[in-house]
Amino acid sequence: MSSIYYEKQTERWGIQGVVCNGPKEGNPFQEQWVKAVFSSKNETVEAEGFYDGDGIYKVRFMPSFEGEYHINLMGSFMDEQEGTFQVTAPGRENHGPVRVVNTWHFAYEDGTPYYSVGTTCYVWELQSDERITETLKSLEEARFNKIRFCIFPKHYDYNLSEPRSYPYEGTPMDSSVLTKENFSEYTGKTEGNHWNFTRFNPKHFQHIEKCILELQKRGIEADIIVMHPYDRWGFSSMTKEQDDRYWNYVLARFSAYRNVWWSLANEYDLMEHKTLEDWERYASIICEKDPYNHLRSIHNCHGFYDYHRPWITHCSIQRQEPYLSAEHVTKWREEYRKPVVLDEICYEGNLQFGWGNIIGEELLRRFWEATCRGGYAGHGETLLNPENVLWWSHGGKLRGESYKRFGFLHDILCETPGIGLAPYELKWDCVCAVPEQEWMLRVKSYYLIYFGFTRPAFKEYYFDDETEFGIEVIDTWNMTIEKQGTGKGKFKVELPGKQYMAVRLKKVQK
Amino acid sequence: MSSIYYEKQTERWGIQGVVCNGPKEGNPFQEQWVKAVFSSKNETVEAEGFYDGDGIYKVRFMPSFEGEYHINLMGSFMDEQEGTFQVTAPGRENHGPVRVVNTWHFAYEDGTPYYSVGTTCYVWELQSDERITETLKSLEEARFNKIRFCIFPKHYDYNLSEPRSYPYEGTPMDSSVLTKENFSEYTGKTEGNHWNFTRFNPKHFQHIEKCILELQKRGIEADIIVMHPYDRWGFSSMTKEQDDRYWNYVLARFSAYRNVWWSLANEYDLMEHKTLEDWERYASIICEKDPYNHLRSIHNCHGFYDYHRPWITHCSIQRQEPYLSAEHVTKWREEYRKPVVLDEICYEGNLQFGWGNIIGEELLRRFWEATCRGGYAGHGETLLNPENVLWWSHGGKLRGESYKRFGFLHDILCETPGIGLAPYELKWDCVCAVPEQEWMLRVKSYYLIYFGFTRPAFKEYYFDDETEFGIEVIDTWNMTIEKQGTGKGKFKVELPGKQYMAVRLKKVQK
Repeated sequence: MSSIYYEKQTERWGIQGVVCNGPKEGNPFQEQWVKAVFSSKNETVEAEGFYDGDGIYKVRFMPSFEGEYHINLMGSFMDEQEGTFQVTAPGRENHGPVRVVNTWHFAYEDGTPYYSVGTTCYVWELQSDERITETLKSLEEARFNKIRFCIFPKHYDYNLSEPRSYPYEGTPMDSSVLTKENFSEYTGKTEGNHWNFTRFNPKHFQHIEKCILELQKRGIEADIIVMHPYDRWGFSSMTKEQDDRYWNYVLARFSAYRNVWWSLANEYDLMEHKTLEDWERYASIICEKDPYNHLRSIHNCHGFYDYHRPWITHCSIQRQEPYLSAEHVTKWREEYRKPVVLDEICYEGNLQFGWGNIIGEELLRRFWEATCRGGYAGHGETLLNPENVLWWSHGGKLRGESYKRFGFLHDILCETPGIGLAPYELKWDCVCAVPEQEWMLRVKSYYLIYFGFTRPAFKEYYFDDETEFGIEVIDTWNMTIEKQGTGKGKFKVELPGKQYMAVRLKKVQK
Repeated sequence: MSSIYYEKQTERWGIQGVVCNGPKEGNPFQEQWVKAVFSSKNETVEAEGFYDGDGIYKVRFMPSFEGEYHINLMGSFMDEQEGTFQVTAPGRENHGPVRVVNTWHFAYEDGTPYYSVGTTCYVWELQSDERITETLKSLEEARFNKIRFCIFPKHYDYNLSEPRSYPYEGTPMDSSVLTKENFSEYTGKTEGNHWNFTRFNPKHFQHIEKCILELQKRGIEADIIVMHPYDRWGFSSMTKEQDDRYWNYVLARFSAYRNVWWSLANEYDLMEHKTLEDWERYASIICEKDPYNHLRSIHNCHGFYDYHRPWITHCSIQRQEPYLSAEHVTKWREEYRKPVVLDEICYEGNLQFGWGNIIGEELLRRFWEATCRGGYAGHGETLLNPENVLWWSHGGKLRGESYKRFGFLHDILCETPGIGLAPYELKWDCVCAVPEQEWMLRVKSYYLIYFGFTRPAFKEYYFDDETEFGIEVIDTWNMTIEKQGTGKGKFKVELPGKQYMAVRLKKVQK
């Protein structure tokens, strides 16, 4: 007969963790189970638990309502147990999980708009404590509010060292044989690895949970990449049974964190052992086992996954062409009628690889282009440095130029009336956004016009004879907003003849 | 009975001009005719003449061979007359007219490759003598070898003043009523103009011929735009009969200049009074009346003319999209199997118009991109200045940055083995050119690889185990070529991590 431990009070969208002791013998991962039903007057949620090592079993729960909740805990090794706890109002910075709203946009569950400004650091959380601390500081400084990262370690150019921990009990292949020249020969191989795929390493997951919480504290969504192909350990070529066990374990552990998003894979189409049926099966497992319906997507290499699939909440796009990326947001919005998130559109960097060698100006341009077409862009940084610490995989210090300018863009987004921007065809030679909710209205109150790499010295506008607009000239690179009086009828806006400028026109409220 | 005057000697591809006197009475343009047959052992050419005013009639001829030529001159007002002249070897700088060779490229008739580096100054020749002199100096300095310009004057924003002369006898509308705001209301109108479309103004054409010769002296092709829509005088809405008379007069006057190219129109699809049948009829007139088969094309606004038409020698393209232009050269080469000349791909400038406000770096990038895809790009400049003299229309001084860098590109092109470059799919993240004649060969001796807006810090190559390549790193903006030794098997090229770099690999000849 186990005792159960839990907090008597938690906040709305916080975590209630129910802990109990149980058998250590045999293989608890396989031989035991634990689950709980959490119920209040507004919801009843059955949550699967997991074995956390050392004879400790846990069931986690994220309450979606305030008030009294009842716990019914069950397990293979114990009689049903009960408990009660109170859910209080959320803390000031807790807005709940992010949801899709208004077809193409996001908001937290409390209604606060969420404008995604994401970055990618594939295995930032598998680095040293010092580097993790530095990464968190960098994320705050850049004001990123989403980060994509992997649960499994990464094997790739510039990523040949051992991670701080592995997800399974066992031993990895000898990595001392790896060089820049031969590493790709080991990609997808399993030789030399000895893993017990029936025994997870709870410390690996506990550490990731700590990192998810650190992100949560900072208002950053954890876009978790559950599978990926950059592998020399065999994690990308497990059996169906092993995969499903992994998915269930991940879901039981991470679902209750309100800032979690599910990315089924990075470059799913490079995972040669997985079939479309596999991906759809993983999706079913998520839909069944994540009681909170966290956002779900999947990231491509050569071709998109079918974003029409009903379980996919938003597009998570890697661009398909060397020249165009954000420019296609308008088309993709129409095609998929879901939020369009460009998670990979070439990183700011100077790598030999074509996916990581644009300048900061160009990455910022792609952000603004995506924004003014009603989508969301993602950052990454691949600037070579003597320490060989590349943000894109390792986190650490940000060294580029674009990251300093996303907070300003985020501020502009937060000033949108309503939630989110929609593309509006004003002229062929600029991109123009209007508030999503005004898109269909004859008279609009707000235009955000972006000129990208062109550099007009002035522009002329005519909307109608009556409406008076406040004119603002925005330098997206230098992050200045210059007020330029008002305009009515046909009016002219003076511009500095520089690249990366925008104009914002706001109807003057009488 | 008239006497005839002509030079007893001319050089191959020079001009033989036969002059005679005739009636001034009535309307000689309509009532008289003159023509001549020029014959030698290699060719017999019938050339139509024209009335040049003041009782003077002329027939012009460009001999394509050396040796003795015989003249038979005929006219409505005289008996047949004869003459003889010698054609000598061409002068040092005279390579003959430009022809299409090797499907996608150009060469002068003597076999010298011609790599087009063109610009557009629509009515440079209708400016003051001082400005014309300045334009010629600028053209030389920039090393342009083609210029596009109109015979008719131009009515457009920044182009509201009177030209130095008109092509017809008569008087134009009062231009003092025009303003920046109202000018477009006059576009395509004829009111207030009084022209006699049966009487050309020979001085207008004589002056243009002088300008064509000035270009010829400098090795610059005259890409003559015969019709265009930027008109307040009625020249764009003449009757079929008036048009045909104009075409015949233009052909009789200009065909014998070896550096002439025919551009049927600028933005043909904006000429609302003309039909496809009209354009095809003009083309027939050229094919019938230009005995020298000068290059022929037609320039678009919204959609291409059908470049498959047999009379079209090369594509003269205005780009169709705000983002991509030169990037489509590969596709257009395949589709049309003719030289691809991008005559308008956004000008270096800061105008309010989307067709004239990119930075010099971007225009140069488009040149290199087109080049490495086996095509040819064109320049234009629309930088605002206090004098309101914009190169794009008026010529004058060049004020931009791109023009300084085309001579360097031309030098690189001249170093191509054989004639012309072909696109070669080396990797997805760069453009790569190989010599056209090596394209189908298994082993190539020459690769020109361009990185555009990306900025890798190094690149790695592998072609085969045997071939040794000389490595050159080309900075296309700063116009430097750095030799970096040789490479064989798998080799690495160090790059400065800047934009607009290229690498040239040349097989080391043992």
